[in-house]
Amino acid sequence: MSFSEFKPLNENTLIEYIQSVPSLSSILGNNFSDLSVKEVGDGNLNFVFIVSNSTGSFVLKQALPYVRCIGESWPMTKERAYFESLALKEEGRLSPDHVPEVYHFDRTMSLIGMRYLEPPHIILRKGFIAGIEYPLLAQHMSDFITNTLFFTSLLFRSTTEHKRDVAEFCGNVELCRLTEQVVFSDPYKVSEYNRWNSPYLDRDAEAVREDNLLKLEVAELKSKFCERAQALIHGDLHTGSVMVTRESTQVIDPEFAFYGPMGFDIGAFLGNLILAFFSQDGHADQANDRKGYKEWILKTIEDTWNLFHHKFTALWEKHRNGAGEAYLPGVYNNPEVHLLVQKKYMTDLFHDSLGFGAAKMIRRIVGVAHVEDFESIADAGKRATCERRALDLAKMLLKERRKFEGISEIVSAIKQF
Amino acid sequence: MSFSEFKPLNENTLIEYIQSVPSLSSILGNNFSDLSVKEVGDGNLNFVFIVSNSTGSFVLKQALPYVRCIGESWPMTKERAYFESLALKEEGRLSPDHVPEVYHFDRTMSLIGMRYLEPPHIILRKGFIAGIEYPLLAQHMSDFITNTLFFTSLLFRSTTEHKRDVAEFCGNVELCRLTEQVVFSDPYKVSEYNRWNSPYLDRDAEAVREDNLLKLEVAELKSKFCERAQALIHGDLHTGSVMVTRESTQVIDPEFAFYGPMGFDIGAFLGNLILAFFSQDGHADQANDRKGYKEWILKTIEDTWNLFHHKFTALWEKHRNGAGEAYLPGVYNNPEVHLLVQKKYMTDLFHDSLGFGAAKMIRRIVGVAHVEDFESIADAGKRATCERRALDLAKMLLKERRKFEGISEIVSAIKQF
Repeated sequence: MSFSEFKPLNENTLIEYIQSVPSLSSILGNNFSDLSVKEVGDGNLNFVFIVSNSTGSFVLKQALPYVRCIGESWPMTKERAYFESLALKEEGRLSPDHVPEVYHFDRTMSLIGMRYLEPPHIILRKGFIAGIEYPLLAQHMSDFITNTLFFTSLLFRSTTEHKRDVAEFCGNVELCRLTEQVVFSDPYKVSEYNRWNSPYLDRDAEAVREDNLLKLEVAELKSKFCERAQALIHGDLHTGSVMVTRESTQVIDPEFAFYGPMGFDIGAFLGNLILAFFSQDGHADQANDRKGYKEWILKTIEDTWNLFHHKFTALWEKHRNGAGEAYLPGVYNNPEVHLLVQKKYMTDLFHDSLGFGAAKMIRRIVGVAHVEDFESIADAGKRATCERRALDLAKMLLKERRKFEGISEIVSAIKQF
Repeated sequence: MSFSEFKPLNENTLIEYIQSVPSLSSILGNNFSDLSVKEVGDGNLNFVFIVSNSTGSFVLKQALPYVRCIGESWPMTKERAYFESLALKEEGRLSPDHVPEVYHFDRTMSLIGMRYLEPPHIILRKGFIAGIEYPLLAQHMSDFITNTLFFTSLLFRSTTEHKRDVAEFCGNVELCRLTEQVVFSDPYKVSEYNRWNSPYLDRDAEAVREDNLLKLEVAELKSKFCERAQALIHGDLHTGSVMVTRESTQVIDPEFAFYGPMGFDIGAFLGNLILAFFSQDGHADQANDRKGYKEWILKTIEDTWNLFHHKFTALWEKHRNGAGEAYLPGVYNNPEVHLLVQKKYMTDLFHDSLGFGAAKMIRRIVGVAHVEDFESIADAGKRATCERRALDLAKMLLKERRKFEGISEIVSAIKQF
């Protein structure tokens, strides 16, 4: 069999493929007798195989030319695998402790071979549903976010490097368009793809579509998403794109990566933490009222932003006389103006993050793709109560975000809903 | 002689070159006996030859690998000619009445052959210095600005087309960097390239370098310039990039073109009109007090913005159900929200234009490249008075721009200085 043109792999052809790729077959000690292959892709887009034997293991992720969770009726370029591999390598370079290593990439086959995140790694979202605390999560995620955003921004890089990479990732436009549609457009209009917890949220979904001020704010965010190349963002940094154990935090699936607004990543993560928070009442039972767990989630929200703020500004201090071209030392050398621009930068970024986070929450309640945090609450009425609280908070955040000055105010607002 | 690799042309080799290019030699009826060749480049960057005989004429513009007005010590990619030719063709397609036709482009030679804008066409800036009124100027320039910006923005185009062209123009990064340096950085720091009307403006130049609030605003504008791909902008739309007669207005020299913030073009033009206004007192004499002319300039400032606003929103109405992806009809279909987003868009654009316009004024008074409007005022003291008024207005505009709601308020502010 030849792999000189694209073909979707199955559990049989996959073995033939591996045998033809030394960087993969060597991981298995070139021994294919005790091989185990499992298809585990539970994502919306791709096929994912875990390949292992007694010698080693890896994951093979193949992009197909359509959106898996919708089917062949929603075509989607398989070239996304190329941008995912680029992003994995760049993020891995910048945050090696929190990104799985890439062993192999095949552009023709849209196939990435990478580290298998072995048990007890699970998807963070499932950890939240199970009520598991991850004491290092805020520390690790703030590391990942800080390093990937700072070092690909004009705070660190020259505009020459910046425009070169912006141009490269412009090629990932189809994935950007998917986000534009499902995050910034569909939830605010009648769309065949939208769904919600009906009939409970019928009025709520309608209210989103009729809220002019909400749409005004969403337009501003969409414009930033489409036009502002601030840093290399992951592009889909929800809790389903993170795998965890108590000791390890690994960010996966950056196929939506491009140069966009930093707040989109920070907001995606914080917004999904808030969704996890509001889902907890639906998972509480007599054995576990989840009260302490909710407190831990709130603390994680607060810590993630505060640690990010601390680390990001620390990197800024460290590199302020470096090659970054946003604030040249000759212009911004006096301490007063330096503080002034830094405060404005971080405040704008905070407000962007709140806005994007809110938009990501809203789309998970009235848009096409929902979150298991809510979906796994069996009682639809109870689920609706949780979802409505999250939705109402998100609408308020989106419209009022500029009034908030710090993350502790956000935590207070969450508690009030 | 072969032209298969780059060589700077002179008046002799140029004829040989033309003979080798049918699209150029045919304009001359293949007759080289009565040929006239004049080098007329008075710009900062390039060599420009006017070639004509009794049959026809054209201009040959060649980019050299350095900044002409500085010399070989300031290298500058000659690839800028490629982006200039791209931009000329695109602007010519969108605003054919106001862009000279391109007859020939040679990437190897960094050479553009285009329409010769025959007398009485002169550089608009020289017209302002001479006190000549151009009754159609606001009409024509608002046409050019509206058409080139609207049709390359997401109000008209899909994000697929947008990202493709954004990527292409990312290649023009060296010219973007030149703007970053001379507009957004050098005037606000000590730089060997800065100059000003010394000793009169010594304190004023120092005050610019020490004004923290000014630097804070400049940082925001620079960030928009570096990161926000809103539309294909000319990138250098001052009054030296426009050639005029009473009937004709032609925009030339888009070698700084890239996808950037629309306000940079609008501001460049308005800012240079304001510079022209403040220079008039220096050109007044007993024969002509320039009072009526100053009124005409103010009217042109007001008309340019108002006509732009009118035409731009009219195009928006016309194409609101088209392929533009910024405001999808399904989301923004009700009249109330449509007005709301349009008002916000135009207000933001107005404030951007004021900010960029102010930055362009400041750099022309304390930065590397000055304007003939002021430079041609022989009396340095009188010149300083004119320059200081312009500088003070610009500083105010940059810091207070968000307080202005319409162009008439700007005209009032100009009159007060």
